[in-house]
Amino acid sequence: MVRRKEFKVKDEYQQDVIQFINEMNYGVLAMQGKEGFPIVVPLNYVYLNDAIYFHGSKLGEKMEVLTHVDKATFAITEEFATIPSYLEDSYFACPATTFFKSVIIYGHIKAVEDERLKHEVLNELMKKLQPEGGYSPIVYEDESYRKRVKATAVIELTIDKQSAKFKFGQNWKEEKHEKVKAHLNERQNELDIETIKLMERYCPYHGKQK
Amino acid sequence: MVRRKEFKVKDEYQQDVIQFINEMNYGVLAMQGKEGFPIVVPLNYVYLNDAIYFHGSKLGEKMEVLTHVDKATFAITEEFATIPSYLEDSYFACPATTFFKSVIIYGHIKAVEDERLKHEVLNELMKKLQPEGGYSPIVYEDESYRKRVKATAVIELTIDKQSAKFKFGQNWKEEKHEKVKAHLNERQNELDIETIKLMERYCPYHGKQK
Repeated sequence: MVRRKEFKVKDEYQQDVIQFINEMNYGVLAMQGKEGFPIVVPLNYVYLNDAIYFHGSKLGEKMEVLTHVDKATFAITEEFATIPSYLEDSYFACPATTFFKSVIIYGHIKAVEDERLKHEVLNELMKKLQPEGGYSPIVYEDESYRKRVKATAVIELTIDKQSAKFKFGQNWKEEKHEKVKAHLNERQNELDIETIKLMERYCPYHGKQK
Repeated sequence: MVRRKEFKVKDEYQQDVIQFINEMNYGVLAMQGKEGFPIVVPLNYVYLNDAIYFHGSKLGEKMEVLTHVDKATFAITEEFATIPSYLEDSYFACPATTFFKSVIIYGHIKAVEDERLKHEVLNELMKKLQPEGGYSPIVYEDESYRKRVKATAVIELTIDKQSAKFKFGQNWKEEKHEKVKAHLNERQNELDIETIKLMERYCPYHGKQK
C-alpha cells in the first residue's frame, strides 16, 4: 500500500506505531456508502485487545451503516513540520513537502453486544481521554452503570491489515537532512522541535559515522 | 447527515466553515475500494474555485483508484478541548466529551488534465503551505515549470454536498457553559483558550441578557 518504501515504518519501529496509536485521541473512520460516497466520521477511539474500539449513540449514522456494512478503514494521522522548497532549490517550488505520521487500519467492524466488554471499552476510553480520573470506574459489577452502558453503542474494528507511514526525510541525503534540521531549529514553529527528534529517530544516517 | 441539529453549523456561520477549510492544511480523502474497504489517504489540499484540489505522484495509489472511481468523501477535522465528566457529575463518567470541528465534503473526483489549471492549483497550494515565498511562482508562462507540472498529478474534488459540525457545548445550559469555561481558563491545556473563544462564538446564550 505504501509506494515509497523508504517511508514505510520498518519492523524495528513497530513499537513506535503502537505508541502513536495509543497517543492519538481520534481518527477518521470510513465505510462504504450506498451511493458511491464513503461514509466518513471522526471518532475518539481506544486500542485494546489488538482491536480499535469506538463509542457513540445507538441512534447515529454509524449504527445504521453497520446494518449493511462489515468492513471499514480507519486513519490515524498527525501532521508535523512543513519543509520549505528553498532549502533545496531557490527557484523551483517542487521540493516543498510536509512531514507526517499516518497509520491506516483495514478491518472488520461490528457493534459489540457483550455488555461486560462494553463496560471495559468505555472504562479504557475514559482512562485514555480523562487520565486525571474524577469518576467512578465503569465496571460491570457497578449496577448503577448498566442501564447507561446498555444505552451506549460500542463498536469494534479488528485490525486485519495495517499500513504505517512515517515521513521524515528518510529519502534525503545527509547534507539536506542537516540543513533542514538547522532550519527547523532556527524557525521553531509549533512541532518543529519534535520534528527534529523524529527526523533523527528515523534518519538512516543518524548516529552513523561518515 | 448531522443527527444532533444543535451542532450543525448554522447558515449565519457559513463564512466560518470557509475560513476553517482555508486554515487547515490537510484532510483525509476516502474513496470506495474494490474489496469493501474504503481507500483512505491523508492529503494537503487547497480550496479554489469552489472545489478542493490535491496533488501527488502520477504513480501513486490515488491515481490508480481514479481509473475506476469518480466519487469521494473528504474530511477536514480538528479536535479541541476534552471536557471532563466531573464538571457535570462526580460519579458517572458519561458526561465526558470532546469538542471538535468537522467538515465532510461529498463530491466528484477526477484528475485535472488542463495544464494551465494544474499550474494555478500548484501555485495556490504553495501560497497556502509556504506563505513566506522563496520560490518562483508556478505560472504557465514560465516554461521551465511545464515539464515538472506535467509530471505531477493534480486532482479535483467538486463540492456537491457538505456537512459541517462544530461541537462546542451548544446543547448545554448556560450554567454548565460558564462552569466549563472557568475550568478551561484555569487548566490552560493546549487549545483550551481557543476553545473558550469558540464556545462563546457558537453559544446560543452568549451576549444575551439573562
